[in-house]
Amino acid sequence: MKIVETIAEVRAQVKEWRAQGLSVGLVPTMGYLHEGHKSLIDRAVAENDKVVVSVFVNPMQFGVGEDLESYPRDMERDSALCENAGAALIFHPQPEEMYHKDFSSFVDMNTLTKGLCGKTRPIHFRGVCTVVSKLFNIVQPDKAYFGQKDAQQLAVIRHMVSDLNFGIEIVGCPIVREADGLAKSSRNTYLNEQERKAAVVLNQSLQAAQDLYENGERSAAVLSAAIREKLAAEPLAKPDYVEIVDWNTLEPVETIQDSVLMAIAVYIGKTRLIDNRIL
Amino acid sequence: MKIVETIAEVRAQVKEWRAQGLSVGLVPTMGYLHEGHKSLIDRAVAENDKVVVSVFVNPMQFGVGEDLESYPRDMERDSALCENAGAALIFHPQPEEMYHKDFSSFVDMNTLTKGLCGKTRPIHFRGVCTVVSKLFNIVQPDKAYFGQKDAQQLAVIRHMVSDLNFGIEIVGCPIVREADGLAKSSRNTYLNEQERKAAVVLNQSLQAAQDLYENGERSAAVLSAAIREKLAAEPLAKPDYVEIVDWNTLEPVETIQDSVLMAIAVYIGKTRLIDNRIL
Repeated sequence: MKIVETIAEVRAQVKEWRAQGLSVGLVPTMGYLHEGHKSLIDRAVAENDKVVVSVFVNPMQFGVGEDLESYPRDMERDSALCENAGAALIFHPQPEEMYHKDFSSFVDMNTLTKGLCGKTRPIHFRGVCTVVSKLFNIVQPDKAYFGQKDAQQLAVIRHMVSDLNFGIEIVGCPIVREADGLAKSSRNTYLNEQERKAAVVLNQSLQAAQDLYENGERSAAVLSAAIREKLAAEPLAKPDYVEIVDWNTLEPVETIQDSVLMAIAVYIGKTRLIDNRIL
Repeated sequence: MKIVETIAEVRAQVKEWRAQGLSVGLVPTMGYLHEGHKSLIDRAVAENDKVVVSVFVNPMQFGVGEDLESYPRDMERDSALCENAGAALIFHPQPEEMYHKDFSSFVDMNTLTKGLCGKTRPIHFRGVCTVVSKLFNIVQPDKAYFGQKDAQQLAVIRHMVSDLNFGIEIVGCPIVREADGLAKSSRNTYLNEQERKAAVVLNQSLQAAQDLYENGERSAAVLSAAIREKLAAEPLAKPDYVEIVDWNTLEPVETIQDSVLMAIAVYIGKTRLIDNRIL
């Protein structure tokens, strides 16, 4: 496995692979890889001849006062994980490589990005769409892999790919959880012991709603009340949002019919965590 | 030469060419092709194995009250011109093929698009960047050809390609003029006989400034005054803007040193025409 820091090196490597007729999968990450990321890389390795993992904490998707500086980094561990999983290349650019000093372009959309995380993180998805467009253009993969943990991101990327005609298949992969149900996240590392225990309430609250759904409940208001009630019982938890939306449009629904996303963002102490279920 | 209306047909054709190891050039146009477009196609044919000409009057780059509806169209003549010039494929999509009903993504930039034509056409370059990104993703050409007549567009596309890492070489081609110096434009067809005569003032005013420059004048204010004076002498001409800017950043300059763009937009009657010189 190679680790490269420049766009030119990635292009040269991919060109070589293409000349050999090999297929290429891309797993875009911000590093500090956990088993969730590993499941994406595993799937990419199974479905492509060569897999590129990008490790880049993208400044453009962090707002003022967010955790850009403190976001955890560990390239040594990340490299080992990628190598063991069978990735062929890590692209690990410095911010200057991705954003030269006159950089001013962006990719954004008028729907899907305003609600859910977009409400408290207004520039977040602009940053995500822009960096993912750049990575798509640099790597030009056949397929790219995103976790369903970031459900809104997955929906936004799928929409962008369709709108802008990227010739890339987007593969969404299921959430990977800790033994007690907490969704794996690089940000779990921010939690102290007490908060870590409390954080299990995210998954539990969604499970409570899913149980109701499986018993026939179809009212979004009832499901959402169940989630809020469960969250309210945990003193360390402060909900940012609890939303039940259409999985394609991310618009709120009243009655659950087709594919619906139950998504929550919850502060556990100072750490903002997200989790979701697709019904 | 083939004419196709769907994205899928373009992709299939380009894939076939790529499998044969052929290079592909793209000439994006809004149709109603004239000798300016022909010069782009000629150059593309000379430099690539296969050339795709897109003919699409892009609704997204027209503002309210602009000439989207009246913009001239003539596919029969366009096809003949492309075929004679040696193009291999015309991509002529309907608006619904390019913008499905849930379309909401866009590509834009924070610099280069605010001044010059962007001042009176605030959404224009967002539409241009978006449709050109789509065309780049659909055709995935090696090179794409743009006329220097739309100088700001050329600068914007070059900046976008650099920022977003499109692996495409942008080739700018010189302005083609009528015998009396009027820059070729599909919009010249809007002019009546009297206006057509008056329209020559655009080129003449730029020539006056260029003459001064060639005699050693380096003050942007002096050159711009010379342009305005010449335009003021033509009763049918009403300047929209007269600007002297850096050719890379499109920011106004005071003293002419490096590569500088003198750009003007002038109403001749109701028709807005543009012209420019790069010094």
